[in-house]
Amino acid sequence: MKRVVYSGTFDPITNGHINIIERALKLFDEVIVAVAESKEKNTMFSLEERVLTIQKATDKFGKVSVKPFRGLLVDFLKDEGTDFVIRGLRNGVDFEYERDMHYANRSIYEKIETVYLNSKIEDSFVSSSVVRTLIRYNGSIAHLVPSEVLELVNSK
Amino acid sequence: MKRVVYSGTFDPITNGHINIIERALKLFDEVIVAVAESKEKNTMFSLEERVLTIQKATDKFGKVSVKPFRGLLVDFLKDEGTDFVIRGLRNGVDFEYERDMHYANRSIYEKIETVYLNSKIEDSFVSSSVVRTLIRYNGSIAHLVPSEVLELVNSK
Amino acid sequence: MKRVVYSGTFDPITNGHINIIERALKLFDEVIVAVAESKEKNTMFSLEERVLTIQKATDKFGKVSVKPFRGLLVDFLKDEGTDFVIRGLRNGVDFEYERDMHYANRSIYEKIETVYLNSKIEDSFVSSSVVRTLIRYNGSIAHLVPSEVLELVNSK
Amino acid sequence: MKRVVYSGTFDPITNGHINIIERALKLFDEVIVAVAESKEKNTMFSLEERVLTIQKATDKFGKVSVKPFRGLLVDFLKDEGTDFVIRGLRNGVDFEYERDMHYANRSIYEKIETVYLNSKIEDSFVSSSVVRTLIRYNGSIAHLVPSEVLELVNSK
Amino acid sequence: MKRVVYSGTFDPITNGHINIIERALKLFDEVIVAVAESKEKNTMFSLEERVLTIQKATDKFGKVSVKPFRGLLVDFLKDEGTDFVIRGLRNGVDFEYERDMHYANRSIYEKIETVYLNSKIEDSFVSSSVVRTLIRYNGSIAHLVPSEVLELVNSK
Amino acid sequence: MKRVVYSGTFDPITNGHINIIERALKLFDEVIVAVAESKEKNTMFSLEERVLTIQKATDKFGKVSVKPFRGLLVDFLKDEGTDFVIRGLRNGVDFEYERDMHYANRSIYEKIETVYLNSKIEDSFVSSSVVRTLIRYNGSIAHLVPSEVLELVNSK
Repeated sequence: MKRVVYSGTFDPITNGHINIIERALKLFDEVIVAVAESKEKNTMFSLEERVLTIQKATDKFGKVSVKPFRGLLVDFLKDEGTDFVIRGLRNGVDFEYERDMHYANRSIYEKIETVYLNSKIEDSFVSSSVVRTLIRYNGSIAHLVPSEVLELVNSK
Repeated sequence: MKRVVYSGTFDPITNGHINIIERALKLFDEVIVAVAESKEKNTMFSLEERVLTIQKATDKFGKVSVKPFRGLLVDFLKDEGTDFVIRGLRNGVDFEYERDMHYANRSIYEKIETVYLNSKIEDSFVSSSVVRTLIRYNGSIAHLVPSEVLELVNSK
Repeated sequence: MKRVVYSGTFDPITNGHINIIERALKLFDEVIVAVAESKEKNTMFSLEERVLTIQKATDKFGKVSVKPFRGLLVDFLKDEGTDFVIRGLRNGVDFEYERDMHYANRSIYEKIETVYLNSKIEDSFVSSSVVRTLIRYNGSIAHLVPSEVLELVNSK
Repeated sequence: MKRVVYSGTFDPITNGHINIIERALKLFDEVIVAVAESKEKNTMFSLEERVLTIQKATDKFGKVSVKPFRGLLVDFLKDEGTDFVIRGLRNGVDFEYERDMHYANRSIYEKIETVYLNSKIEDSFVSSSVVRTLIRYNGSIAHLVPSEVLELVNSK
Repeated sequence: MKRVVYSGTFDPITNGHINIIERALKLFDEVIVAVAESKEKNTMFSLEERVLTIQKATDKFGKVSVKPFRGLLVDFLKDEGTDFVIRGLRNGVDFEYERDMHYANRSIYEKIETVYLNSKIEDSFVSSSVVRTLIRYNGSIAHLVPSEVLELVNSK
Repeated sequence: MKRVVYSGTFDPITNGHINIIERALKLFDEVIVAVAESKEKNTMFSLEERVLTIQKATDKFGKVSVKPFRGLLVDFLKDEGTDFVIRGLRNGVDFEYERDMHYANRSIYEKIETVYLNSKIEDSFVSSSVVRTLIRYNGSIAHLVPSEVLELVNSK
């Protein structure tokens, strides 16, 4: 069984992330969403909120597990017993950042394999950071995130 | 009458910004400079200082209004009754950032139209951040900013 | 009256080009499409075919003129009595190429002003080169070009 | 059974290509190498030479088939009954080119899925074009290509 | 005698930095490592720790001096009586940042000359930021930094 | 004595090239301009014309030699007994191309060292290709090339 890790802060998860998870399931038997605690950044949503929201939003796909994640990605991979990581790519600057992360990780765990998919063209501007800005100023986000994020925002 | 919004933090305004405003007036009948409050960033100059300095520095152009700006750019556009935004471009990384902002804004306000001009080649390195670094360490900035910024700095 | 030049080889014109022309008309009173002869490249369609097709495809906009173009863009601008050029931008590599062309042109005609608009996000991959490849191998192009290009292709 | 297409001109195949094929086999059950005829480019090696060399060089992997390829990639995918394409990525410019190809292909075949892997860091400069230049001027290529390419070159 | 300044935060120094210093000595008679105090960033290691570690790590090269550095690079250059700065380059984004710094510095000190070397291909992902992340989560860094950094980390 | 090779097609040499040569002489005792024959490209000027023009244009610097160059750069370096190559950089795309050439060359000659300088900001758009286009259509080039190129063009 092939399993893949999709790691990130997901603060909050967007339709772009959901689309990558859905398409990853065409390549892999299970997607493990690794939700980074992000000590360094102040997140808008707590780790618990983010994990729970992603669980609800990916429940329909059946083969997605969502786990909080602290520390190094390569340690998480070893714990999960897989070498595969999946990433969405929007543009060349994105890629160069991801590539260097990959090479850094590979320098301490040679078996890591990062697999990239294109973001959907119509989602190519969507990021958690854009969504947070819209939330902050009461802009519409319904077209950018799964309904579970809307519920989370409205519950506050 | 065609009006265009030029938004930014302008902390402080530079000769590069002034040049964009001046050239925007060849395309538009009025330029509205929208000075962002910038809650998230600590600015070197207060919102009031920045607005006042830009007013003085653009007074000679006649058709420039300067307004403080809080919230989403698209809400500001609707309030002003225009769909046009103007931006200066220095390099490809600049553009990819601006493009994604444009697509994000367009996803919540379809009529927005962002118009880009090239920075002057000899200004292509100038940014507010470079100017702030020079101010901090007593470097010369007279060649990078309008005289009104020099007065503001000297008054402190 | 503000007039703007939109120059290119247009071999053939795409929906991306048509969209730029349509939006340029919100900024300018007239768009002059300058169709480059392209001595250096072998074009798939003749200069006459390209001019005629663009005329038909832009006829509905009312304020578009289409002219064959040989030589330097700055000479064409002077002949037309305007300083404005319009370009669509898809990505950062596009921009860096266009910027250097602009600076080269400006070095021989200081008054030139290049105005950039974003391509529509869903058109951001469309180019004449992609269309030619599809034509060559009988791929579908109906979603990428105006109907006048389809007629031209079918007439061959 | 998951099958993936790896298309290119492979003029000639390099160690970078071989490495992508080998790693693709960790994700897919079969790799179909689609060797483009390349009418437009003059190739250094004939289509037959390129197909035969790749067959020999990938024979040891067991689950690789090598086929000549004319026309559109999406037609080849449909003939082979798969939606997956694999590509190696070296840098951001590479990616932006591949992304636009993907979006163009997706516009005529929505099910296409392009999967990207990083080139190995130490291979990140290797390209067929570099190899051809070295061949042309009798430079050493033994570290850049499989031995089967060396044999092909020496047989000439 | 030709002397060159290599400035940075070096928090901590990496094998990539050491390699640039070593190769700079083929071009220059002396390398002055200017260790920036970095008021704005919270560094992992103190200025004293960083200076001392670099001194130990570069002692074997003979012609390297290490100095703390506050303020503007151009003032440091004038104090040292040299116009040369050396930088390592990993990718295009790196370069565009460095180029704009160079042009900003040149605008206040025309004689500055920035000399760039390629990072080693196998080091092209290494940065102080990657090293700090590994330290924070107990990842291995022995392959990325000189032994003097290991000692510093272990002493804490 | 430190010698450096500056290789290119120089079809024709521009003020940007001349500026790099002049500044290279602050770092090196001699600059050897290696003028590539360029079998693959049709050049506007013959190898003999290019060599002679550069000789005249660099005569005033005293320590410049100009030589025709066929084959691989690394063979030329070995013949000349130096490991240093100098290149001007204008933008990130430029750099990524040059970097890959460097790594390719280094893979067959480990001692090669490529040294990069920034182009002057006001020259950052100048290229031989821009100059050839201007020559072809009788545009002014006097501000872009040394007077020796003007003489060559006028003599035709």
